Amino acid sequence: MSIVLDTQGGDNPPAELIRGGLLAADEYGIDIIFAGDEAVIQPNLPANDSRFSILHAPEVIAMEDTPAETVRRKKNSSVVQGIKAVRQGRAKAFVSPANTGAVMAASLFGLGRIKGIERPGIAMALPTTTGGKVVGIDMGANTDSSAENLFQFAIMGRVYAHRVLGVEDPKIALVNIGSELHKGNELVKQARAYLETLPGFVGNIEPNRLFHGEVDVAVCDGFIGNVLLKAAEGGVAITTSVLRKTLTERFLYKLGAMLMRPALRQFRDAMSLSNFGGAPLLGVRGISIITHGNSNAEGIKHAIRVAKDAIDCDLLERIESRVQEHITDGVFEKTK
Amino acid sequence: MSIVLDTQGGDNPPAELIRGGLLAADEYGIDIIFAGDEAVIQPNLPANDSRFSILHAPEVIAMEDTPAETVRRKKNSSVVQGIKAVRQGRAKAFVSPANTGAVMAASLFGLGRIKGIERPGIAMALPTTTGGKVVGIDMGANTDSSAENLFQFAIMGRVYAHRVLGVEDPKIALVNIGSELHKGNELVKQARAYLETLPGFVGNIEPNRLFHGEVDVAVCDGFIGNVLLKAAEGGVAITTSVLRKTLTERFLYKLGAMLMRPALRQFRDAMSLSNFGGAPLLGVRGISIITHGNSNAEGIKHAIRVAKDAIDCDLLERIESRVQEHITDGVFEKTK
Repeated sequence: MSIVLDTQGGDNPPAELIRGGLLAADEYGIDIIFAGDEAVIQPNLPANDSRFSILHAPEVIAMEDTPAETVRRKKNSSVVQGIKAVRQGRAKAFVSPANTGAVMAASLFGLGRIKGIERPGIAMALPTTTGGKVVGIDMGANTDSSAENLFQFAIMGRVYAHRVLGVEDPKIALVNIGSELHKGNELVKQARAYLETLPGFVGNIEPNRLFHGEVDVAVCDGFIGNVLLKAAEGGVAITTSVLRKTLTERFLYKLGAMLMRPALRQFRDAMSLSNFGGAPLLGVRGISIITHGNSNAEGIKHAIRVAKDAIDCDLLERIESRVQEHITDGVFEKTK
Repeated sequence: MSIVLDTQGGDNPPAELIRGGLLAADEYGIDIIFAGDEAVIQPNLPANDSRFSILHAPEVIAMEDTPAETVRRKKNSSVVQGIKAVRQGRAKAFVSPANTGAVMAASLFGLGRIKGIERPGIAMALPTTTGGKVVGIDMGANTDSSAENLFQFAIMGRVYAHRVLGVEDPKIALVNIGSELHKGNELVKQARAYLETLPGFVGNIEPNRLFHGEVDVAVCDGFIGNVLLKAAEGGVAITTSVLRKTLTERFLYKLGAMLMRPALRQFRDAMSLSNFGGAPLLGVRGISIITHGNSNAEGIKHAIRVAKDAIDCDLLERIESRVQEHITDGVFEKTK
């Protein structure tokens, strides 16, 4: 099994990202194709190791580049060439820390859409306080989604929760600002009618209840999903900041904090984004995994793990056949 | 100075809310008019204390009631009667933990809008890691706002940050999912053009950067604002949950945690919503303060403090005159 790792476009230097690829190869027994500048990648690889190869594609897509236009123009970028390797069957998946919009555009152009899906969505498995996961979809691929888009996100998110996370009968909820039916903006009010036709739909979920393990799939527009994700990150940051400040105020607290240092480190790691990085773009015809721009080697390793899991459980084929079932059932027609 | 406190519609019983009012009267030297069921309120008040009076309005607006319709129907509710007391000049402000939509509807119908403001917005002063505050507006009064609404929220939010929080030259930012100009949904792209005409506008702010003290006013649609608020709350909750779990894993950690108990309690209090509860509904012609439905006595006391601060610095008049200046400048015309 070969996976393409994009070594460019993240906040960290290629060497750090490559290290993540090497770790993943050892831990998961897979081959890695490193996409990027050969001259930069070569010195970071062990000599004569047949598990590793280089896809020379030195053009870099910057964070501030306009996605669609850049993808058309930068044909020799690691993003475009990496996706091409997946399309041509030279690799089973593409993993990238680059500009989300660019990875999305390259995936759409290069791999095409699953029949029946209008827009792909980013699915992210977020940690819950009960030790499980909740799949948020869409976490930032699209802004200004339609109710039909949300309906399709729900179908794909449910397959992901079932097949990849192993949830037997996943519960789907709609992200909303209240549990009551009359709450929400026009989009969620429309989407709700569609979602009610799906098995497993349980109603609205408020963002503060998202992390309590009550639901398995949370559906929303990508603008909302991205705000939600970043605000939760902000909540984690302000808590740790206040905690750090409080704990250094008195000698006794400092002593206590010293005794607990390993626990606090463990806590920090559990909270670290790198531990839940790696989000598949669902709806395109191939496995394309987006990781946080600031991913370090551990984050990259985890994202490759997400890619491997998706491949192992035939995620793409499962989504295709589930969507096909819905088309056959006429559910898509009903939502028109 | 008299302030009406709504004793109904919160998650806590009237006695707890009344206790918050009594605390506020002592601490801030104000008179309180308790709105609700006289038979419930009376036993909770000290005898013969001229600072306290009762506004008998026993009808309760429930969380699940449809706001506008309920406000028209339940004329003898504490929400409707409390707002009426403000309109008639019997009180300077109204404070309520009830259904946000109902308080908003009653305030709109009962007090009317400030000239030039199409929709009021909920302004909330959120804590930052630098020890300051950032005013989020709108945090949930409206869903599906227009770019013009966001522009007006920005004007009002800036007056609030300047007059009530004492920020000399408040920096305004637009809540968005990236710092780059091309990012965002249609609403924020349109709003950006309007906001750029305002003094103090500094660009986009991502929700994870909101709590770092970089900006003083963060402008967004109420659906987005409410998602942001609740997701940040979720982030705080998951952090404290993981922390609690980690700290009880080993004896040494428990010992450390014991030494730090006062610090951890202080930490919990600093994080508590009740410490930053109390959000004015800006844009109506009177001071109307919304508090978290689960506010306890401390939360209510804090909300009354917010009301007092707004009265002390003539917030309403300041907003009216600033909006008038913008009308005179023709800025509102430019946004058409």
